Amino acid sequence: MRILGIDPGLRHMGWGVIEAEGSRLRHIANGVCHSDGEDLGARLLSLHAQLEAVLADHAPQAAAIEHTFVNKDGAGTLKLGQARGVAMLALAQAGLAIGEYAPNAVKKTVVGVGHADKRQVAHMVRVQLPGVDLAGPDAADALAIAICHAHYGAGSGLVAALARARA
Amino acid sequence: MRILGIDPGLRHMGWGVIEAEGSRLRHIANGVCHSDGEDLGARLLSLHAQLEAVLADHAPQAAAIEHTFVNKDGAGTLKLGQARGVAMLALAQAGLAIGEYAPNAVKKTVVGVGHADKRQVAHMVRVQLPGVDLAGPDAADALAIAICHAHYGAGSGLVAALARARA
Repeated sequence: MRILGIDPGLRHMGWGVIEAEGSRLRHIANGVCHSDGEDLGARLLSLHAQLEAVLADHAPQAAAIEHTFVNKDGAGTLKLGQARGVAMLALAQAGLAIGEYAPNAVKKTVVGVGHADKRQVAHMVRVQLPGVDLAGPDAADALAIAICHAHYGAGSGLVAALARARA
Repeated sequence: MRILGIDPGLRHMGWGVIEAEGSRLRHIANGVCHSDGEDLGARLLSLHAQLEAVLADHAPQAAAIEHTFVNKDGAGTLKLGQARGVAMLALAQAGLAIGEYAPNAVKKTVVGVGHADKRQVAHMVRVQLPGVDLAGPDAADALAIAICHAHYGAGSGLVAALARARA
């Protein structure tokens, strides 16, 4: 099953595609969609078009997105929410069911602890997807979300296999 | 100039269309888009489709949306942001420039004070758009946003005319 993970953000939106076959994971592609400038409508339009291109290029069969908000910063959360809404719309328009995972759940699945930092996440993504060339920390987070979905959302039996591997 | 106002929300999204000719305002239509259920992707998809229908039915030449977030509630602000992002995307896809107004600015323009309650807003919308049949408070707020944009965004000289009318 081909899974697209999204790390949402208005300025930088990470994405990563993996192939999960049974307990085997394989990297397909990753990248970052960028939007800049003053005009929010134009930025959302650009993000939506970039995600549509990713969906057309890689034809994922499942999708997952991080579920988070910016604590104590309404303006930051509103920006994040707007970008996240446009990302979820693009996924839904492609007919994909969407898994949602809190950052701690993603880190716990990929690194083994809920409070890992970005370098640890990137390191474990490289370990689990040998040969991957990461487009940046947002792309690494997106691949981690896709890996998390392979374990939980796609019902692939990977959870047990990884629990054994870590023991 | 035909102006579409949007009062964004995930569950209820108000919209209102007015025609502004010089200092004259005329009501065209108003309503509320609804989305319900557990599946956020499906809800955003539904809101986007409903807004596309409004845009196709009424062909506005300008648009405005409320700029607000939920104080001290990250989860509420994230929900609002997602709905607002999808609304702004629909407007941008229709090629519209989008005005953004804080709630206080809208109230100050329509009612004359920045802290008016919803009933006062609905009352003044009825006064300024004689004969209007309001679909609900969210639709009244959306019409108020469109009126605000007629005053400031469309450069129609209405500000001076209304200041005279209130004096």
